[in-house]
Amino acid sequence: MTVEPPTSAPDTAARGHARSIVLVHTGDGKGKSTAAMGVVLRALARGWRVLVVQFVKSGEWRSGEQETLEGLGAEWRVVGDGFSWDSEDLEASAALAREAWRPASAALAGGTHELVVLDEVTYPLQWGWLDTDEVIAQIRGRDDRVSVVVTGRDAPGSLVEIADTVTEMRNVKHAFEAGILAKRGIDY
Amino acid sequence: MTVEPPTSAPDTAARGHARSIVLVHTGDGKGKSTAAMGVVLRALARGWRVLVVQFVKSGEWRSGEQETLEGLGAEWRVVGDGFSWDSEDLEASAALAREAWRPASAALAGGTHELVVLDEVTYPLQWGWLDTDEVIAQIRGRDDRVSVVVTGRDAPGSLVEIADTVTEMRNVKHAFEAGILAKRGIDY
Repeated sequence: MTVEPPTSAPDTAARGHARSIVLVHTGDGKGKSTAAMGVVLRALARGWRVLVVQFVKSGEWRSGEQETLEGLGAEWRVVGDGFSWDSEDLEASAALAREAWRPASAALAGGTHELVVLDEVTYPLQWGWLDTDEVIAQIRGRDDRVSVVVTGRDAPGSLVEIADTVTEMRNVKHAFEAGILAKRGIDY
Repeated sequence: MTVEPPTSAPDTAARGHARSIVLVHTGDGKGKSTAAMGVVLRALARGWRVLVVQFVKSGEWRSGEQETLEGLGAEWRVVGDGFSWDSEDLEASAALAREAWRPASAALAGGTHELVVLDEVTYPLQWGWLDTDEVIAQIRGRDDRVSVVVTGRDAPGSLVEIADTVTEMRNVKHAFEAGILAKRGIDY
């Protein structure tokens, strides 16, 4: 079978129990944000303080699960106009992205939450609304009690570099491709 | 491992608004069960009745998140001895797998739950404790109000064939490989 953590990992004396880790969910498949939801659930079950910053308003998350996780204690920030970022008002989009980054940045530096989710932050990075080097530097330089989950397609190489665990969600087969419309309760 | 997309055309009868769908989370990466957790959360937020059958006792799920999801209304079944399935008592293991399959089978046929999670069921399929053809037939022949999430490595081709959405969670980089021990609250 499978789930076999090595009993003696390399360099354990030096690294030991990480105080916090960086997880990345990337790739073109389903489940990047959904798996982040699962991590949030797990963290809340452990009594952690959790901040979710959702950089794309109309992403995989919907109000039902946000409300449920807020009911369990998670804090939430959603960027104002989400998908309209690739609009023609580039200045407004960049300003919005920077505004969304502010609470994330504060939580990373402040150690106010044991888990910070940067949901779909790869998009504003790709579009240049946020500076990749600065975001990476702030994740690296975070308070070491803060674990981070980053989701979104096309994670930049420098993010993969600093991450502890990177999973690519690869689309093998998708209901949309087979002509099946989104199913309420599953897809949204 | 690579899961190849199926070559045959999708069942056209299933086009349009599916009453229910089959999701598969497979691959060697993290997040297969964690993403299933997210789907459970989403379903519960919609007021769905949810049954989780966990075919490997000591898998990704832990008691904290199980209790949280049960608190939100999910029902749970956990196979008796999980990791000891690959023991030398093959008869006992097979009997256990069949016993675990019974509530799953009843829920699939009975339409008692809008979502049934078959967590890590690919392992007893691989090991021959459950008959793959029979499991596939029961998923196909389920009450059409029942959506299904199947998780586990090495999903059989016949399962990929009947699934609506298949995501391969591919391990790009894992903290274990870098010598970082599992982090409580994230990995378990």
